[in-house]
Amino acid sequence: MTKGVARERMRLAPGEVLLYPGVPSPNEPVYRVVRGLVRIQHVDPDGSSLTLRFVRPGQFFGEEALIGVERDYFAEAMTETEVEAIDREELEKGLYPELIASLVSALDESYTRLEHLANKRLKNRIAATLLELAGTDLAEAGEEGPVLRLTHDDLAAAVGSVRETVTKVVGELAREGLIRLGYGKLTLIDQKGLTRLAKSRE
Amino acid sequence: MTKGVARERMRLAPGEVLLYPGVPSPNEPVYRVVRGLVRIQHVDPDGSSLTLRFVRPGQFFGEEALIGVERDYFAEAMTETEVEAIDREELEKGLYPELIASLVSALDESYTRLEHLANKRLKNRIAATLLELAGTDLAEAGEEGPVLRLTHDDLAAAVGSVRETVTKVVGELAREGLIRLGYGKLTLIDQKGLTRLAKSRE
Repeated sequence: MTKGVARERMRLAPGEVLLYPGVPSPNEPVYRVVRGLVRIQHVDPDGSSLTLRFVRPGQFFGEEALIGVERDYFAEAMTETEVEAIDREELEKGLYPELIASLVSALDESYTRLEHLANKRLKNRIAATLLELAGTDLAEAGEEGPVLRLTHDDLAAAVGSVRETVTKVVGELAREGLIRLGYGKLTLIDQKGLTRLAKSRE
Repeated sequence: MTKGVARERMRLAPGEVLLYPGVPSPNEPVYRVVRGLVRIQHVDPDGSSLTLRFVRPGQFFGEEALIGVERDYFAEAMTETEVEAIDREELEKGLYPELIASLVSALDESYTRLEHLANKRLKNRIAATLLELAGTDLAEAGEEGPVLRLTHDDLAAAVGSVRETVTKVVGELAREGLIRLGYGKLTLIDQKGLTRLAKSRE
């Protein structure tokens, strides 16, 4: 970052990584998504990935810098993304309430993710995640419904499973007419049906 | 709460519930644990419980009140606990940095909980949770190590499993000499062994 710049905007290409695991440096800024989508991704030593959070426009990430604790994730752009880096002084000038609102909502989403992982079947978790992503900048409007450009690996990480199993369940959802599969993309053609499935405990 | 009181202290007995699921009322305070331990507990319609977070002294909870989103959990004292209720004006007077630090660390713990739930065997999760609780006011110092007064239901909720399975694994840990079981309590007699197990991916 250029010194003396309180906020700096950066553009990230899909797949570009902004933050890596490790202890944040003493004056590291925090980040806010301006447009696009960032995923907070944990990668196990054995290579398996788990998405801890999707960060949407207006939300902050990289907050560990504020308390100096080790970061255990990669922050990666999922689509064309713009973020701003905000330094401490700028935060103190009046951004605390917005930062607090972002953290409370992140914590709340994280509770939901825990509940789903502990209590819901994989199929329900996949439906819930597809709907969550349909509300982000990753989704494009299609004739039949929102189109998501998403690999089965991405989806497996987002639901805490592995690709092979996710591919099987995604096939089921397609046969049941809830989604349509295309090359590297996926269309939500029955959002009501997916919502029912996401809420169901069966 | 008495009007005009910016901070009010309250004592809670073990098992006492302070917050219930629902939309927070417009001027609801946030809470901070002064001593003791509070658990943030989700209960499914079918009755199964999942601990989303343990709140230790100095940490805040009930932060949904600040953004008005629905609360999906019970906040319950696990031991003799004292909390303070802090209203918005009091927060604004200079507690934002402490609240932010508490939220960042809660989010970080929540990431760890997600990783464990997705990637670790039940036995490793139980070891990790016992060690986590050994560092709280729930633990009493015993001759052989920290003593936890904890039911198998409590432990099952904390690790995202069910009592029957937890009872089986707790028995294994006792046979392996890592813990000693007593009536309604549990002593960590080999903390090094439990730490190895908690960190292991096998």
